[in-house]
Amino acid sequence: MRIPKAIQRVIDNFEQLPGIGPKSAQRLTFHLLRFPQEYLDEFATNLSELKKSTVICTICFNIGETDVCAICSDIQRENQIICVVEDVLDVIAMERSGRFKGKYHVLHGIIDPLNAIGPDDIYIPQLLKRIKDNSERIQEIIIATNPTMEGEATAMYIVKQVKNISEKIKISRIGSGLPIGADIEYADEITLQRAMESRREY
Amino acid sequence: MRIPKAIQRVIDNFEQLPGIGPKSAQRLTFHLLRFPQEYLDEFATNLSELKKSTVICTICFNIGETDVCAICSDIQRENQIICVVEDVLDVIAMERSGRFKGKYHVLHGIIDPLNAIGPDDIYIPQLLKRIKDNSERIQEIIIATNPTMEGEATAMYIVKQVKNISEKIKISRIGSGLPIGADIEYADEITLQRAMESRREY
Repeated sequence: MRIPKAIQRVIDNFEQLPGIGPKSAQRLTFHLLRFPQEYLDEFATNLSELKKSTVICTICFNIGETDVCAICSDIQRENQIICVVEDVLDVIAMERSGRFKGKYHVLHGIIDPLNAIGPDDIYIPQLLKRIKDNSERIQEIIIATNPTMEGEATAMYIVKQVKNISEKIKISRIGSGLPIGADIEYADEITLQRAMESRREY
Repeated sequence: MRIPKAIQRVIDNFEQLPGIGPKSAQRLTFHLLRFPQEYLDEFATNLSELKKSTVICTICFNIGETDVCAICSDIQRENQIICVVEDVLDVIAMERSGRFKGKYHVLHGIIDPLNAIGPDDIYIPQLLKRIKDNSERIQEIIIATNPTMEGEATAMYIVKQVKNISEKIKISRIGSGLPIGADIEYADEITLQRAMESRREY
């Protein structure tokens, strides 16, 4: 049986998305056939509008509805601390935790030589310029890239570059260790090493 | 941080799909922001066209580009055997196996009293009418609903109804047992019971 073209096209679209294989793409598409046409039209409009109605903030490169974004223009937030993250989703996760009251800088990626992504392919030059332009005001850079090999390498690169700009700026890395609710028994060695290294005194 | 409305709308659309939770919906949507606008527009058009360009076959209720569908109108296929399946995806899976050369009947669901789905809510009346109208020609009904509780109950219901129409029609159920490549050690008891019951002589 040849799958009808109209169905195959939507399957192909879904397959382009991360984590959706051929089987899931099929299942999702055939499920959509059960929705009313209005839902499909609305979904279609929303997809078309997705990029048109959002902009990248020219200060922090977060995605928002306005340039400058809501966080950068918030006068309640501390201007002297910048938290550097890989991705917009990381900003959302951080904001959900509600702990951080400074500004962000979104790299939109990570230094990854194996995939030929260097420092200039992500928003590192813009970060360094931002720090340079505001070196009197900025007190701390918190590097919150993921604790992966690429995340650590990117962090190290940024540390070196920021030190070149000013020795006065404090640079920190978010804490590594056991996540809350985890079981030491099942933790991997590197996480345990990190957890020991970042132990805190009572 | 409030997620921009345009983004939240697409997240909400994705969340309506089966197997996609809030986190995946977010991840998919933010990934879409990296695609070019043309891709989003194409995806949008394909979604809108999905239902408009497909029809349900009035004979077998398979989804296709034409009514009658390509399988029902194929004169090479045997007209005297009907394979009853739950879903259009089951037709695709069966066709991929390439073993069955008869016709299909798609129920578009399963009898499921817990969710208030009775025989008349799926395409069982249409199946029975189809058998009644062609009782001279039809030799066998293969019931290929899933080997779940609801699938078995639906199968039993169809068996009873078909027997009421004609005692001459052979009714069979697809084989149950261990899938190829499985490990007896890890098989559940019911599957093993079924595998023993449907053992075949050499």
